[in-house]
Amino acid sequence: MTIRLGPNRYGKAECRLVTVVRDGPRHELTDLNVSTRLAGRLDATHLTGDNADVLPTDTQKNTVYAFARDGFAGIEEFGLRLARHFVTGPIDRAQVHVEAYGWRRLGGHTFARAGDEVRSATLTATAGQAWAVGGLHGLTLLNTTGSMFKGFPRDQYTTLPEADDRILATAVDARWRFATLDVDWNAAFAAIREGLVGAFTDTYSRSLQQTLYAMGERVLERVPEVAEVRLALPNRHHFLVDLSPFGLDNPDAVYVAADRPYGLIEGTVLRDDAPLPGLAWDLGAA
Amino acid sequence: MTIRLGPNRYGKAECRLVTVVRDGPRHELTDLNVSTRLAGRLDATHLTGDNADVLPTDTQKNTVYAFARDGFAGIEEFGLRLARHFVTGPIDRAQVHVEAYGWRRLGGHTFARAGDEVRSATLTATAGQAWAVGGLHGLTLLNTTGSMFKGFPRDQYTTLPEADDRILATAVDARWRFATLDVDWNAAFAAIREGLVGAFTDTYSRSLQQTLYAMGERVLERVPEVAEVRLALPNRHHFLVDLSPFGLDNPDAVYVAADRPYGLIEGTVLRDDAPLPGLAWDLGAA
Amino acid sequence: MTIRLGPNRYGKAECRLVTVVRDGPRHELTDLNVSTRLAGRLDATHLTGDNADVLPTDTQKNTVYAFARDGFAGIEEFGLRLARHFVTGPIDRAQVHVEAYGWRRLGGHTFARAGDEVRSATLTATAGQAWAVGGLHGLTLLNTTGSMFKGFPRDQYTTLPEADDRILATAVDARWRFATLDVDWNAAFAAIREGLVGAFTDTYSRSLQQTLYAMGERVLERVPEVAEVRLALPNRHHFLVDLSPFGLDNPDAVYVAADRPYGLIEGTVLRDDAPLPGLAWDLGAA
Amino acid sequence: MTIRLGPNRYGKAECRLVTVVRDGPRHELTDLNVSTRLAGRLDATHLTGDNADVLPTDTQKNTVYAFARDGFAGIEEFGLRLARHFVTGPIDRAQVHVEAYGWRRLGGHTFARAGDEVRSATLTATAGQAWAVGGLHGLTLLNTTGSMFKGFPRDQYTTLPEADDRILATAVDARWRFATLDVDWNAAFAAIREGLVGAFTDTYSRSLQQTLYAMGERVLERVPEVAEVRLALPNRHHFLVDLSPFGLDNPDAVYVAADRPYGLIEGTVLRDDAPLPGLAWDLGAA
Repeated sequence: MTIRLGPNRYGKAECRLVTVVRDGPRHELTDLNVSTRLAGRLDATHLTGDNADVLPTDTQKNTVYAFARDGFAGIEEFGLRLARHFVTGPIDRAQVHVEAYGWRRLGGHTFARAGDEVRSATLTATAGQAWAVGGLHGLTLLNTTGSMFKGFPRDQYTTLPEADDRILATAVDARWRFATLDVDWNAAFAAIREGLVGAFTDTYSRSLQQTLYAMGERVLERVPEVAEVRLALPNRHHFLVDLSPFGLDNPDAVYVAADRPYGLIEGTVLRDDAPLPGLAWDLGAA
Repeated sequence: MTIRLGPNRYGKAECRLVTVVRDGPRHELTDLNVSTRLAGRLDATHLTGDNADVLPTDTQKNTVYAFARDGFAGIEEFGLRLARHFVTGPIDRAQVHVEAYGWRRLGGHTFARAGDEVRSATLTATAGQAWAVGGLHGLTLLNTTGSMFKGFPRDQYTTLPEADDRILATAVDARWRFATLDVDWNAAFAAIREGLVGAFTDTYSRSLQQTLYAMGERVLERVPEVAEVRLALPNRHHFLVDLSPFGLDNPDAVYVAADRPYGLIEGTVLRDDAPLPGLAWDLGAA
Repeated sequence: MTIRLGPNRYGKAECRLVTVVRDGPRHELTDLNVSTRLAGRLDATHLTGDNADVLPTDTQKNTVYAFARDGFAGIEEFGLRLARHFVTGPIDRAQVHVEAYGWRRLGGHTFARAGDEVRSATLTATAGQAWAVGGLHGLTLLNTTGSMFKGFPRDQYTTLPEADDRILATAVDARWRFATLDVDWNAAFAAIREGLVGAFTDTYSRSLQQTLYAMGERVLERVPEVAEVRLALPNRHHFLVDLSPFGLDNPDAVYVAADRPYGLIEGTVLRDDAPLPGLAWDLGAA
Repeated sequence: MTIRLGPNRYGKAECRLVTVVRDGPRHELTDLNVSTRLAGRLDATHLTGDNADVLPTDTQKNTVYAFARDGFAGIEEFGLRLARHFVTGPIDRAQVHVEAYGWRRLGGHTFARAGDEVRSATLTATAGQAWAVGGLHGLTLLNTTGSMFKGFPRDQYTTLPEADDRILATAVDARWRFATLDVDWNAAFAAIREGLVGAFTDTYSRSLQQTLYAMGERVLERVPEVAEVRLALPNRHHFLVDLSPFGLDNPDAVYVAADRPYGLIEGTVLRDDAPLPGLAWDLGAA
């Protein structure tokens, strides 16, 4: 029996970074959570503890802050610059994941956190190539009507009645792979977000799967730089409360919002001519 | 030695309740988390397990859902109606706490969760009296300038330099006691929220305490029905990163957002002629 | 109308502190979360931003670390020493809250975190007096039998059937006030914890209130230094699953563990001759 | 441009399930969180909302509870039975993920939650084959000595000093792939857990990578049924506090436990002759 080291990587997770641009009376605020991951010729540290090839995670953190000194044009650009910097010597692959928290402007220098919605970007680089994945999570959407769930198979364990009209709610977790790095990142994000929300709003939903597909399709139709969209949509169940024991009807008025369990629908929508993903999704997929 | 039962109460916590009003093409959505607490002549169940006076928490939950059937005019009105209902027989005090999660309208029947900000109300009733407390938490505010911290005492453990200009950030946790129940609840909430945000925005801050006082004062100036404001403001520290080891200056541009520890400033601002709080803050304060 | 400052306090929350005593081959590990709160003559900073009386929260943090340098005999002793230190000049009241996370020893210098259970202590001092409160939270207990809930009143909203035998589960949140500061803190904690667990185990429960009272009573019987016990016990509901639609019975075998809502039972058990609490529970209660 | 559906799956997440075996005076308690995921011929529901092939997630939940009726021999056996059941008709792949929460016995029918440590199992089935992955997370380990970090490269962003002796702490997140389904599951889990903890305890660590490899290697040496171990080890940094401004030394006695950022070390250790993973790790990898 021989035991050996398989795929591995290391980095600094969750560097919390806030930048302020003070060019005029209207300050610009950016609030990020940056994580780095490096991979390459790292057998020595695993097998013998020789760290000659291990750029410390503390150094990676310092680099993140230093690179933020002069600002950046979108979190994708910032992540890409960092990822490319880290590919050197024994490190032949680097991935930088950036999460951006939204703030609403209340005044020239006053802001309010805009909620749970987080924009993300995952940038991966090798010596000769790079990939960009964008993302969005924490966006919770709800339709009070325009959703049914019918025509499903029944087996001996099925008790669910068919639903002609139900609340449909989900917390969008979306990631999309760009086919190119020649992108106006902030404009693309705005168009993608609008596509996701628009398709959720417009789709008369016979299943959450149908809504998922419509959301992915809408993004691909509107944003040509996107090759593939991956969605994970929890079904945030809202059950109509039975008020009949209290002599009351419930004309689709009062619901209990359930915590667990929840349905979870996951799917990918992509172009037929999408380029191969390479390392875009997984640093270890070399 | 005699051992005895002291103050006690019981109830159902966190009934998750969503209501939809479907009067026209524009649906109205309410998303609540309701908790009940009852107190009174409850020695028997504690001492002998005799439950003849213990209205089950399950019944309390059912009541919450049943009372939501016909809608309500503000969460304060809903909580007050529930609290008064529970005061009967051995139960001589009841408190209902309601949290409301915000949703932004995206269409006639589509909504998006509006973030972490939560409006709350705590309604307390006895057979002859009632009290209302409103609240707001999860509102995170940040000023990129207009804040200093200087002139503080130094002892042998002080290393903090004085700050002429710093980021000031906090997550507002506010509660306010109404002097009356004759209130336009939704209008009052809007005015109070505006007062809190406005004072945070306008105040040139020499300490977070000064900002706290200004926020409470502003509410009391603008909303005559409020007798007292209690605020707890964590100081969400943003530390300027030292980039000099990398040959870079940092002209108030790059900060680390710290998690722990954090300053915590708590204070009350009230009218001199505020009525006594009675049970408004604490069901057990009889 | 006159607006004025009411009760207020400030401090540093959540100083994470780990100490190692390395006297021999068996190291001793302590893992704490320390929060400070000071109150006194603090009007100036609130009203004008004059900080001459405001010992910075950063200094408070430094003091916590410096005071840990030479070890301590129980978190209560540590908190008391800190609280007394802070009472000076304009600060006439100080409160230090300490949470201790448990670690299990695996070897001379190896440890494993012992779970969610947290021991706490709240020490309050004025120039001439001091108070100690101990606590425990995150201890989840469950009885698979020996619990019923019957004989409760029924109103128009009651649908709950009586239960002859149910699972009883709770996450203990206990705090106790000491009548004296002359205590062997670690021995007292062990006896109190054993009392809480023992009473939960032994009590045939007709209501969670009965179990709560038995737990408090047991502590007071066993630990003479304790004057008062406050308990908050969530009822972690376990509902028997109805398997009959699938042609199966369910002889108290399969349960769903519910998240929300949950019953919440709160109560105090105390000695008739307990001394007055003073500021033990609330720094602002002067 | 043609847009199409890519890999997809759906299921019910987080079915909370507690079972009690009441054969004698010593009850047996199992506390699980079960999630299901099905994949197969599911284009219709995505493209047209035709649900004829969509076994409802509600039915999946019911099946989980029904299958628990007669007990099980390890969570792996339970998950495997469920996964195989779901593979039928259009569903050609199923994955069941089970998390088990530990309880310590306090008496014949009394238990206490054993902490954050969670045992997990992921069972995947097709019509003709099946795979088992086991796991463990939430086990936090700490060495007060026996760890250094030296000899790393320095670039222009490096400020970290070399460390001859440091605290090493991590929260183990381990998953392992079995080469066979002919396993005594509970015995294997105990041996694997002992291997992970033992290697952490015994290894004089020159890097967390070295510790990671030692942990994986130990498992493979001791448990022949395991083909591959995947570990993700956060480096829970403990920084020595500089007490010199207060005239104190700090002889490796007082540390601050940091929250963020943290190093994150991820790696795989496997046998050279490990069978191919198939769908063991990823239902969509067909």
